[in-house]
Amino acid sequence: MSQTIFTAMPTVTYEGPTSQNELAYRWYDPDQVVLGQPLREHMRFAVAYWHSLVMNGADPFGAPTLHRPWMDRDDAMQAARDKADAAFDLFRVLDLPFFTFHDRDIAPEGDSLGQSLANFHTIADYLAEKMSTSKTRLLWGTANLFTHPRFMSGAATNPDPEIFRYAATTVKHCMDVTKALGGENYVLWGGREGYDTLLNTDMGHELEQAGRFLSLVVEYKHKIGFSGQILIEPKPKEPTTHQYDFDAATVFGFLKRFGLETEVKLNLEANHALLAGHSFEHEIATAASLGLLGSLDINRGDPLLGWDTDQFPNDLQAATLAMYHVLLAGGLGKGGMNFDAKIRRQSIDPEDLVYAHVGAVDLCARGFLKAAQLVEEGRLAAALQDRYAGWNSTENAAMLRGEVALEQIAAEAEEKGLNPQPRSGRQERLENLLARTF
Amino acid sequence: MSQTIFTAMPTVTYEGPTSQNELAYRWYDPDQVVLGQPLREHMRFAVAYWHSLVMNGADPFGAPTLHRPWMDRDDAMQAARDKADAAFDLFRVLDLPFFTFHDRDIAPEGDSLGQSLANFHTIADYLAEKMSTSKTRLLWGTANLFTHPRFMSGAATNPDPEIFRYAATTVKHCMDVTKALGGENYVLWGGREGYDTLLNTDMGHELEQAGRFLSLVVEYKHKIGFSGQILIEPKPKEPTTHQYDFDAATVFGFLKRFGLETEVKLNLEANHALLAGHSFEHEIATAASLGLLGSLDINRGDPLLGWDTDQFPNDLQAATLAMYHVLLAGGLGKGGMNFDAKIRRQSIDPEDLVYAHVGAVDLCARGFLKAAQLVEEGRLAAALQDRYAGWNSTENAAMLRGEVALEQIAAEAEEKGLNPQPRSGRQERLENLLARTF
Amino acid sequence: MSQTIFTAMPTVTYEGPTSQNELAYRWYDPDQVVLGQPLREHMRFAVAYWHSLVMNGADPFGAPTLHRPWMDRDDAMQAARDKADAAFDLFRVLDLPFFTFHDRDIAPEGDSLGQSLANFHTIADYLAEKMSTSKTRLLWGTANLFTHPRFMSGAATNPDPEIFRYAATTVKHCMDVTKALGGENYVLWGGREGYDTLLNTDMGHELEQAGRFLSLVVEYKHKIGFSGQILIEPKPKEPTTHQYDFDAATVFGFLKRFGLETEVKLNLEANHALLAGHSFEHEIATAASLGLLGSLDINRGDPLLGWDTDQFPNDLQAATLAMYHVLLAGGLGKGGMNFDAKIRRQSIDPEDLVYAHVGAVDLCARGFLKAAQLVEEGRLAAALQDRYAGWNSTENAAMLRGEVALEQIAAEAEEKGLNPQPRSGRQERLENLLARTF
Amino acid sequence: MSQTIFTAMPTVTYEGPTSQNELAYRWYDPDQVVLGQPLREHMRFAVAYWHSLVMNGADPFGAPTLHRPWMDRDDAMQAARDKADAAFDLFRVLDLPFFTFHDRDIAPEGDSLGQSLANFHTIADYLAEKMSTSKTRLLWGTANLFTHPRFMSGAATNPDPEIFRYAATTVKHCMDVTKALGGENYVLWGGREGYDTLLNTDMGHELEQAGRFLSLVVEYKHKIGFSGQILIEPKPKEPTTHQYDFDAATVFGFLKRFGLETEVKLNLEANHALLAGHSFEHEIATAASLGLLGSLDINRGDPLLGWDTDQFPNDLQAATLAMYHVLLAGGLGKGGMNFDAKIRRQSIDPEDLVYAHVGAVDLCARGFLKAAQLVEEGRLAAALQDRYAGWNSTENAAMLRGEVALEQIAAEAEEKGLNPQPRSGRQERLENLLARTF
Repeated sequence: MSQTIFTAMPTVTYEGPTSQNELAYRWYDPDQVVLGQPLREHMRFAVAYWHSLVMNGADPFGAPTLHRPWMDRDDAMQAARDKADAAFDLFRVLDLPFFTFHDRDIAPEGDSLGQSLANFHTIADYLAEKMSTSKTRLLWGTANLFTHPRFMSGAATNPDPEIFRYAATTVKHCMDVTKALGGENYVLWGGREGYDTLLNTDMGHELEQAGRFLSLVVEYKHKIGFSGQILIEPKPKEPTTHQYDFDAATVFGFLKRFGLETEVKLNLEANHALLAGHSFEHEIATAASLGLLGSLDINRGDPLLGWDTDQFPNDLQAATLAMYHVLLAGGLGKGGMNFDAKIRRQSIDPEDLVYAHVGAVDLCARGFLKAAQLVEEGRLAAALQDRYAGWNSTENAAMLRGEVALEQIAAEAEEKGLNPQPRSGRQERLENLLARTF
Repeated sequence: MSQTIFTAMPTVTYEGPTSQNELAYRWYDPDQVVLGQPLREHMRFAVAYWHSLVMNGADPFGAPTLHRPWMDRDDAMQAARDKADAAFDLFRVLDLPFFTFHDRDIAPEGDSLGQSLANFHTIADYLAEKMSTSKTRLLWGTANLFTHPRFMSGAATNPDPEIFRYAATTVKHCMDVTKALGGENYVLWGGREGYDTLLNTDMGHELEQAGRFLSLVVEYKHKIGFSGQILIEPKPKEPTTHQYDFDAATVFGFLKRFGLETEVKLNLEANHALLAGHSFEHEIATAASLGLLGSLDINRGDPLLGWDTDQFPNDLQAATLAMYHVLLAGGLGKGGMNFDAKIRRQSIDPEDLVYAHVGAVDLCARGFLKAAQLVEEGRLAAALQDRYAGWNSTENAAMLRGEVALEQIAAEAEEKGLNPQPRSGRQERLENLLARTF
Repeated sequence: MSQTIFTAMPTVTYEGPTSQNELAYRWYDPDQVVLGQPLREHMRFAVAYWHSLVMNGADPFGAPTLHRPWMDRDDAMQAARDKADAAFDLFRVLDLPFFTFHDRDIAPEGDSLGQSLANFHTIADYLAEKMSTSKTRLLWGTANLFTHPRFMSGAATNPDPEIFRYAATTVKHCMDVTKALGGENYVLWGGREGYDTLLNTDMGHELEQAGRFLSLVVEYKHKIGFSGQILIEPKPKEPTTHQYDFDAATVFGFLKRFGLETEVKLNLEANHALLAGHSFEHEIATAASLGLLGSLDINRGDPLLGWDTDQFPNDLQAATLAMYHVLLAGGLGKGGMNFDAKIRRQSIDPEDLVYAHVGAVDLCARGFLKAAQLVEEGRLAAALQDRYAGWNSTENAAMLRGEVALEQIAAEAEEKGLNPQPRSGRQERLENLLARTF
Repeated sequence: MSQTIFTAMPTVTYEGPTSQNELAYRWYDPDQVVLGQPLREHMRFAVAYWHSLVMNGADPFGAPTLHRPWMDRDDAMQAARDKADAAFDLFRVLDLPFFTFHDRDIAPEGDSLGQSLANFHTIADYLAEKMSTSKTRLLWGTANLFTHPRFMSGAATNPDPEIFRYAATTVKHCMDVTKALGGENYVLWGGREGYDTLLNTDMGHELEQAGRFLSLVVEYKHKIGFSGQILIEPKPKEPTTHQYDFDAATVFGFLKRFGLETEVKLNLEANHALLAGHSFEHEIATAASLGLLGSLDINRGDPLLGWDTDQFPNDLQAATLAMYHVLLAGGLGKGGMNFDAKIRRQSIDPEDLVYAHVGAVDLCARGFLKAAQLVEEGRLAAALQDRYAGWNSTENAAMLRGEVALEQIAAEAEEKGLNPQPRSGRQERLENLLARTF
């Protein structure tokens, strides 16, 4: 293996909270057992190939600022191998258990569909080889159905059925590769599955297309015996004006409509939640209540900005609340926590990538520990228990089960002269309980 | 009937586009036949009792500015009758076919549940009497389950089952009265059905409660033979931090979950769409594509403000797009267009109420005429037809119907070396076609 | 003094971080000396009369939920005295050094201007009496020029000059009372100084009015020898569509225009910053860079909601950043930290008020301690120093002072073939340094 | 001149409102005299070189979709000439009087500062040659100080003074070229003049730098006898988290601080106004009231999206209100209306560029005609006159001039027992007057 820009960097290790080493983990001790499981298995962190290896710092007003050795090379396949070397070297430095990728992150587009697929399989084999000597496994694979101009009007929901076919073909191969590499999930993010203007869009038709496409994926999963989860990643907008997979609740309705609610779960992202007008914990709690919590894309947005900034998380309270709701939901199972986050455009040095991951891993770990503490203390849960206790009575439980009719409820209420009094919601006290954790 | 503040005002009539009379309809000719139906039946305009008769101009930083004769009176029941007199006088002035109300708009809260219900039925009878000599009918009734402190933590979704019962009882009587007054729909807006903080909220439990409540309503509707539509009005937030009926797509998922998607439709509001991050036409098109388009609350928000301003509409292009999607959906059926809009706090004179409605009626009518023109010209539809034409081929239609498997699509694509080329979405040209209508 | 709803509550005391007492201060030790000063003098906390004693829980969709003994009473003046008793009892419980008020918070509107002023002076005298036996002093007074309908179209910027006069008269008396009570600042918040629609607004004229009004205030301050600061509180909107005192930078321009930039400073509020699209620390840093930092209104908004939620702060990181910039600016001087925050509408019990303040005081104190730690460690400052070090060279300093012309800079650059290379902004590393503080 | 992609297209001409030709002007008759001036001189339309000739359809999630013959060519200088040929051919097709450019739009970056400047002057000469046979003149020139990585942390406000020098050198040459080409204005847009995080930013220092930079520009303007206007283009954020030139009011304060308020005016953009939380007419009215209205960047944003979409305008009401406030301000003088708007990424055909401009020109022209009608009818102005009439009285005018002291106003008000009554703001009536224009 060639030298990489990360070769000289030592592997980041756990040194504990008092460490002054900026490139050590202070809270993420993968072996620490919390609520019966080591942190490693609770968190299941993954490095995102695209943001860490592909992203070049360009923005809508600026040229690339990050110039990595594998970028802008004539021999695209060799560059892809060099990139893979660097990727696994970075995984070694960070010592995290998983990574994630799009087909296009790892291998270059070819001159034809056949060539693109061949490139992809070739580099996938190279990755398999790298994985054989690495501790880092594949959390999920996915297909990039949004960058190439052919997808500018959608992939599954393109008005042109030939593009639907092209996208389907691409996904078929991505699923094959994901399975071959031992991926534990397969993700669909419909970046272009939406519209820029309703004036040129038949939304009803496009939703039918989306339903069919997802059904094809689910059917194929069973056919090939892929045991991973199929995940949809909601996002409300950007690059589109409206994306069909708006948020967790919207995707639930979509899955129900096409009878896929037991086949597909959600990969939720903090920044996407924000763009939809939700907190991350809201999306997690919603998915959990609908049985759809699958995996997390860990990052943060900026509530003062209206686009997907995909920043590394740095807000301990937000992280704690997200982790608390993951714990309430019983954990992530086959899912994990994928750093779908990119260093800022001004953070041009390779070490910035390491700073960013170390900070984020530690923040999530610390948030998780705080959340576990909240669970163990049980005060928030007790307050909730108490607040809904009235529903435990025989007759109220029966009412909730549907055993009493409206007119009967009314007759009883009128007879009793029902006059229920409001009770304090105690929001500030509960917020204090949370704040005191920090 | 006593004199009212509207008695001296003449009935507003259609005078045509060249009229200089500020209190005449220039575009709303109820008898004009468009696309086979008179405008009156297309539009089905309604006056909202609460905004027009009850709203007093208070805001979070200001005291009431509107002082109507029926407000702040000692004899609340006589005040309610005077208010009803004024309401029907206003309906006479505006000459619109429908009105809408909450129980609490028409009758005062009593000292007990029994007294509140009695007040409500007494004034409902008075309304029935007024209606017998009025042309204005009831588009829909609804229950106010958000103003009284007992509902501060929700009605159907209150942690206290006694409040669920209280709310159910209230709705039962509102449905009875709506049926008795010939209402064509019954609406549920869950102003407090959501949360202020997840810290004190069991979202899963509350969603179960919401599902049960709606099921009770639907069961009761059938029991009493109410032939109107049951409608849910989505709103994402305010007064709550998060409301469960976020938007059309969310409510669809909710209805599917509880098996109510053929029983309940949507009452969509422009300002609520905006708060959810959608255009009004998006919500209409979404509802239409899901078979849920029921009725409209006509108003506008201010995209630069983050709350429900409920302004009277004044944007012709926005109105045209909304009407265009209503036409594409085949119209509103039993639904209508309810002016859920309030005059500004500084508009303190009774005539401001008339200015506001006349402008709004005319704007909607003109938007409808423009939309009908777009339909008749057919250029937008033709562009759409053309854009999706590829799906009409035998094999693509079969693919959409689910007759081809993923691996088969892939095999064919690879064999052909599929290389579909992007086609212009022509957004600017279509926007010009729209703009040229004005 | 009569019994109040707070009489039975003990005074909250500092018990240290390990205390399990929910109604003790864990971080706010007023006597702890940090960076050379006791916390009490750094923080200068104030209780806001309006939110704590006047606010009744009403919202745009809901009736009052808080029913305090002094509300809705026939004898308004006795009620005002009872309210004052309760206020000082609350100050006693919280043991905070300051309070703040509007004229209308402490005394009821009368039937005439004369009566309103008389009421105000009468109760002001009562407050003076209360203060003689209380440790709590007046941070600032202000006039409520937004609640009464006469101010619906503005006070200083009202189209009607009689209302300008009425407002001026009111402010004159508020300044007199503030001085008499030993207030250390006088604040102007122009809740209605803006517009709902430009269609009925002459913005140029209104800005002239605003400039004149503020000049009157400044002139009068000097005339009566009031040694406190005059402060303007920026807010971008709500209740107006646009308020002229949009944010710190806007007010700076306004002050410069009327030559008042050395006479007036800013009272900055976190939630108002958010509504203007800024972080709180941005507003603090901006004010500091313009020499305008005066005082703070401590609260938080909800970035997912578009109105002034005025919540008690609960975000430690946000608090730390605000405090850090206060420290960078050299502290607040005569200003202080006023809890312009209200308990949620569902928090109906008096103890909720105490929970809320205790949590907020502690959060701010802890944030301050963290900020002081950042200052003492000096790593953020050192990074900044290093980043701008180039400007310290003789020739670059001269260039910044304006001693080199554009063409000269260009000539030198071209001669040298200047080719400066970008340097990493190190954002993630600096974020980690911040995060490691927690 | 070589053939271009526009060569086959005929020049767009005015055909009047009944024309069915989609590529004709229906409202923009440049010779039509309105309010004493031909439309051509009122509007002063300009084509933006960057959006029309340089923009390639890439977005943060997608590769370029527009492939023009001059893009991605080996011989960058020949490509620049071909692009210029195409540009002037497009100007010929659109028949608009002005264009605008950045240095980098017209000429490629070289290997060194010297080479970059040489490239720029070479192509500027080529443009001069093209202009000699074209009717299209230069509205303004500007420097691109945001795309190249060297500017990633700012240009004038970069922490590195060498980059300040590089930027100054660039601007010097851009001013020279702008003057040489007869440009009527010179614009500064500070795309990177702001911060991504306050953690690595010394805002006070950077604002000093910005002040110095602008002073250099103003001094140089006088030195070379450039008679055009210097314009700053406000934008609140994007690509930065916060940009110092936030909005019109903020820039006013900045100019006052550095004594430049009579030297510099504003180039206002609709989409930037939206991102700052303002309407376009608000920014125009604000600039006008401060004497800073310079020129307009015509486009629109999407209020449901949080980034700079730079769409071609298509909202007649918004255009009318903007034009109305331009008319109230007395017109744009040396400024103009520059289409800082780009076709959508899916609009990949050259004719889409023509559709877009034709629609936008017509929309603005029609908005202007509507605005002129509003001015001529005078009803909005009369309502305003009436609303503020009270200030015309001798004593109120004296009060506004500052001839009465606060205590005197108060004494008179108290003596009179002032009791001013609110008057209706008539918002809905005025909105109707506006709506009736359409």
